[in-house]
Amino acid sequence: MTRSAADALLAGNRTTLATYDARHFGWSVKAGVATVTLNRPERKNPLTFESYAELRDLFRQLAYATDVKAIVIHGAGENFCSGGDVHDIIGPLIDLPMPELLLFTRMTGDLVKAMRHCPQPIIAAVDGVCAGAGAILAMASDMRLSTARSKLAFLFSRVGLAGCDMGACSILPRIIGQGRAAELLYTGRSASGEEGYAWGFYNRLYAPEALLDEALKLAADLVAGPTFAHGITKKMLHQEWSMSIDEAIESEAQAQAICMTTRDFERAYRAFAAKSRPVFEGD
Amino acid sequence: MTRSAADALLAGNRTTLATYDARHFGWSVKAGVATVTLNRPERKNPLTFESYAELRDLFRQLAYATDVKAIVIHGAGENFCSGGDVHDIIGPLIDLPMPELLLFTRMTGDLVKAMRHCPQPIIAAVDGVCAGAGAILAMASDMRLSTARSKLAFLFSRVGLAGCDMGACSILPRIIGQGRAAELLYTGRSASGEEGYAWGFYNRLYAPEALLDEALKLAADLVAGPTFAHGITKKMLHQEWSMSIDEAIESEAQAQAICMTTRDFERAYRAFAAKSRPVFEGD
Amino acid sequence: MTRSAADALLAGNRTTLATYDARHFGWSVKAGVATVTLNRPERKNPLTFESYAELRDLFRQLAYATDVKAIVIHGAGENFCSGGDVHDIIGPLIDLPMPELLLFTRMTGDLVKAMRHCPQPIIAAVDGVCAGAGAILAMASDMRLSTARSKLAFLFSRVGLAGCDMGACSILPRIIGQGRAAELLYTGRSASGEEGYAWGFYNRLYAPEALLDEALKLAADLVAGPTFAHGITKKMLHQEWSMSIDEAIESEAQAQAICMTTRDFERAYRAFAAKSRPVFEGD
Repeated sequence: MTRSAADALLAGNRTTLATYDARHFGWSVKAGVATVTLNRPERKNPLTFESYAELRDLFRQLAYATDVKAIVIHGAGENFCSGGDVHDIIGPLIDLPMPELLLFTRMTGDLVKAMRHCPQPIIAAVDGVCAGAGAILAMASDMRLSTARSKLAFLFSRVGLAGCDMGACSILPRIIGQGRAAELLYTGRSASGEEGYAWGFYNRLYAPEALLDEALKLAADLVAGPTFAHGITKKMLHQEWSMSIDEAIESEAQAQAICMTTRDFERAYRAFAAKSRPVFEGD
Repeated sequence: MTRSAADALLAGNRTTLATYDARHFGWSVKAGVATVTLNRPERKNPLTFESYAELRDLFRQLAYATDVKAIVIHGAGENFCSGGDVHDIIGPLIDLPMPELLLFTRMTGDLVKAMRHCPQPIIAAVDGVCAGAGAILAMASDMRLSTARSKLAFLFSRVGLAGCDMGACSILPRIIGQGRAAELLYTGRSASGEEGYAWGFYNRLYAPEALLDEALKLAADLVAGPTFAHGITKKMLHQEWSMSIDEAIESEAQAQAICMTTRDFERAYRAFAAKSRPVFEGD
Repeated sequence: MTRSAADALLAGNRTTLATYDARHFGWSVKAGVATVTLNRPERKNPLTFESYAELRDLFRQLAYATDVKAIVIHGAGENFCSGGDVHDIIGPLIDLPMPELLLFTRMTGDLVKAMRHCPQPIIAAVDGVCAGAGAILAMASDMRLSTARSKLAFLFSRVGLAGCDMGACSILPRIIGQGRAAELLYTGRSASGEEGYAWGFYNRLYAPEALLDEALKLAADLVAGPTFAHGITKKMLHQEWSMSIDEAIESEAQAQAICMTTRDFERAYRAFAAKSRPVFEGD
């Protein structure tokens, strides 16, 4: 490939998002960590048709962002997200014909797909209410930090719907086990932070005032790591979901061989040999 | 479709089971909740060739039952089920030729398939001994309530068999994790109620005298919910078992769009708008 | 099949390993229990290219061994295994061309495949450091016993690599859940014995001085069981990894029917009828 051809490849697959001007939620990028703030605190940060679509488009763009290496998602005020807004979403859905219903459910599903396909690890910082589509956003993240007082509810059955929303019947059981997932999805009941932690839904609980800082600290740690390799870890956790063990092992042999050609791998070895800490650069 | 064609469709796919006269176990239907009572308490409620076949046929019929919206399965006396009867089942199997052995293992497997394919959520109320095929019946249920004194044992290895019975090597690891499942399946050891609860096998523990009532209460709560949607939740938990995440999300987009056309979804919205509780009717 | 043809079949598929002379680790066989001892305690038992290859070849041979019915793997001294040796492995990898990198990652992956494909249950006895490829060896075992002081670390990200090593992105989430696995794989942090036990990674914790004896005792219990059936249990746990529930149930119907033709199944029934303990012989 000529250099100009390579440049064309890079130009078509690289972008920066630090100055992205989000319309329906807060957005900031600092030292490689992007923060998404769901920010309609007076209504516990519900989602709307517009915020769904913008989140979907933004997470798709993140696949090409060179200035974002980890993502924190949290809610303004003392709640994470109350889910799809009853007035702005559920009301209008009542009267839609099937093709438009499917447009909606595919849009919400595409947000989860985009969250799983972007290479950056996503950390959800969950305080207070985390319900419906909000619970899905937490579930679709890579790691989840929370507070004892948080309330997690996959409350789709409470609004007359099934628990199969945005991948919940596939993903939730793999995080907390089929039996617990079935209970949450059938009953729509709230789970406390302590329950979520005991079940492995949350990786750690913090005091509410420390939560966001701890999420940002964890994100910063990831950014200081081998971020190209983190992207491969995320991709393989996704790819191997329904592979056999033998297929997964071959896939990992190839994926890890790719990582062994990176400069970060060499940097780690040189640092070890020099008894110093490696400084990773993500390439 | 003309009305008479629709009537023919309904006639071929609807039945009622309230008056079903069970021969090999107890059966009752009350307000949408069916109760299966394994009732040979003097032998801890073992299964026989006859009870297996009747359970399989009944759970298959439940796919078409309009008067059953949730199922509780429990054992008479202070035990759930001791598994396949040693004299009535294991003895005769010793001398069977392969085609007849396969007839037996397929019959037992078909019972689990029928339990997973009927749309009604199944709640196992597990006290005392829950062993062998009894442990499988609990595992094949959607949720499990138990007592601290219960004894769960996948004891197939104790009778010279493998742990792969009626889906155990697929389903049990997804409920309690591969490591714990391996131990139970290789060793056949008993797990206490507390262990089963900590592992997510049981959703909750109750005092023995409260167990059945709590199971019936949970079933009644499900019956008061959007039962058509519950059936979709159950179907999707089944369908997505070995799908990729992307496939699962598309499947859920379609399945949830179906649920958005139901009157229960509209009822929930109208009730919310009127600040009242929705009354779901399952359509 | 004529007797001489059968003899040829047996000759090609049966071997004994009691006298195998291991070069790169300790090896002993006693009463059906093989013990693998990673034994470079002065460096916390790291793996080398040579020990990887020998372990892979040995575990492949174990598929045909008639004198080994269970395997214990542990480390000499107070540590399990520190993973791939930094000097002997990581250094040389830095300069390899892709085909040779793939040769290496496939060799390590083939070790895990061989561990999952041999019929003997493998018990890891994990004390002290259990890191990198060492953590993988523990993960790839069937059951894990450990100590409170053990330190489990999937530290690939610390050396600039991805978490997808030797099947980790497929297997670890099925043992401890996706959320906990993601944290361990992204961050490379150490997990304590108590954490690993709470998560179901370890089946039990023991005092360091009791650990190996307890692992040997558990292995002896397995050897006293129906070992042919144990091999089928292991195979089906492997086979059903990415099957649908319905496919898994049919596979188990066939696999269990095979086990019902064994003499061990008959022995169990005869012993039960005689109110004695069955003596299994593995056929």
